[in-house]
Amino acid sequence: MTDIPKDHPRYESLITREKIVNGVNIGITSKQGLVAQGRGEAFDYLIGEKTIESAAIAERAAVAHILLARNPIISVNGNTAALVPDLMVALADVTGARLEVNLFHRSDARVHKITEHLRSQGADVVLGGKGDKRLDLSHDRAIVDEDGIFSADVVLVPLEDGDRCQKLVEMRKTVISIDLNPLSRTTLTATVSIIDNVTRALSNMVQFTKDMKNKSNDSLLDVIDAYDNDKVISDTLYSMQENLKNKAEERGIKWI
Amino acid sequence: MTDIPKDHPRYESLITREKIVNGVNIGITSKQGLVAQGRGEAFDYLIGEKTIESAAIAERAAVAHILLARNPIISVNGNTAALVPDLMVALADVTGARLEVNLFHRSDARVHKITEHLRSQGADVVLGGKGDKRLDLSHDRAIVDEDGIFSADVVLVPLEDGDRCQKLVEMRKTVISIDLNPLSRTTLTATVSIIDNVTRALSNMVQFTKDMKNKSNDSLLDVIDAYDNDKVISDTLYSMQENLKNKAEERGIKWI
Repeated sequence: MTDIPKDHPRYESLITREKIVNGVNIGITSKQGLVAQGRGEAFDYLIGEKTIESAAIAERAAVAHILLARNPIISVNGNTAALVPDLMVALADVTGARLEVNLFHRSDARVHKITEHLRSQGADVVLGGKGDKRLDLSHDRAIVDEDGIFSADVVLVPLEDGDRCQKLVEMRKTVISIDLNPLSRTTLTATVSIIDNVTRALSNMVQFTKDMKNKSNDSLLDVIDAYDNDKVISDTLYSMQENLKNKAEERGIKWI
Repeated sequence: MTDIPKDHPRYESLITREKIVNGVNIGITSKQGLVAQGRGEAFDYLIGEKTIESAAIAERAAVAHILLARNPIISVNGNTAALVPDLMVALADVTGARLEVNLFHRSDARVHKITEHLRSQGADVVLGGKGDKRLDLSHDRAIVDEDGIFSADVVLVPLEDGDRCQKLVEMRKTVISIDLNPLSRTTLTATVSIIDNVTRALSNMVQFTKDMKNKSNDSLLDVIDAYDNDKVISDTLYSMQENLKNKAEERGIKWI
């Protein structure tokens, strides 16, 4: 990796970029995944590169759903495998959810590499290699495991495409997305839309799970009942606007 | 390239992405360039994937500067070489500006490949191979040709980094940037900041040059005098906000 000084103002963002380029170099991330990473960076810049309050609310609701689930699955793709393998393994551990590899640009070799990569980070069970069921979609994200995503009641889909998110919701699953675009089809379709950088989101969720896992089911259900996804999206748009306004004013640009 | 149906709602954006991935495959674009492309895509989404009025005003002012210049140079990097080699050659032809290859991740092989790529699109003169002068910068974008960027009075820098943009302005050159982030250091530093997708911007500039090249110098100077770069940036921020509001409302999300 390129040597980036720790005091660089954009250290986290540059390290993230290096990790994803490295993912391409070792064959687990697609080149299209780099473009997706860049889109995320721009939206992260707009929310101020921090977890805003509405995102933390979504993350707590997501944790409540996962803790109450019968068969929760964390879907892993080439970008999340490169960026946050450790955090996905940690979240699976602490919640009891299982990991399943699911790729848009799928090949047996890539599924295998990502599985091994997750195992090297301490993952125990990694689903996705069987691919014995299909969702009704025209691309390879259709391929899922019967005892994994196919029969899951709650699916966490970080960095998902809109098609599959919609399909999973139609199958009456609870879908938790992590996507920085507040108006993407994924964000608008998911049950719980986490609009946050995937590194911060998963790291918060691991912490929130530790705080929440000893709570009663009733108290977790209260968290879910109080949650309003449309309000989270509205609040995020408001935060973006305020943040952009502040940035403009700091730079002496008139806000009209 | 992947086969993308022409009636796909995001056809232009997907074709652009394929072109840039292809640039990496043939060794003219860096992997980091793919991330930069993604950032641009997100900002383009925010301005509505069209040339807004303030961008067209900046493009006309840019053309006036180029037509009045003594030694105008169009700086070419790995992303623009992959995306818009034909349009850069067309703009050089119609304005009389010359092309110069200037790379952040520089190697002789890449400079050579990009030069040949531009020649294959009809470019006559391509500078940048000599690299006989340095700007006062710590990275490879410092390396320039003495009779090119070093002595230019007007430099067009599509998809530039902030450092070099600032340096060129300090050298009292007129710098025209093309950058979709309305608050990037490049946009805030340039003399004329074109906040538009590079394909649309160059294609408009070729057309505007045809309209403007027979005008008198006085009338071109009037275009430059009437131009207000801070107003262009303010107006762009306003357009982004309006566009985001419309998108939200179309999707039934409350705008607060």
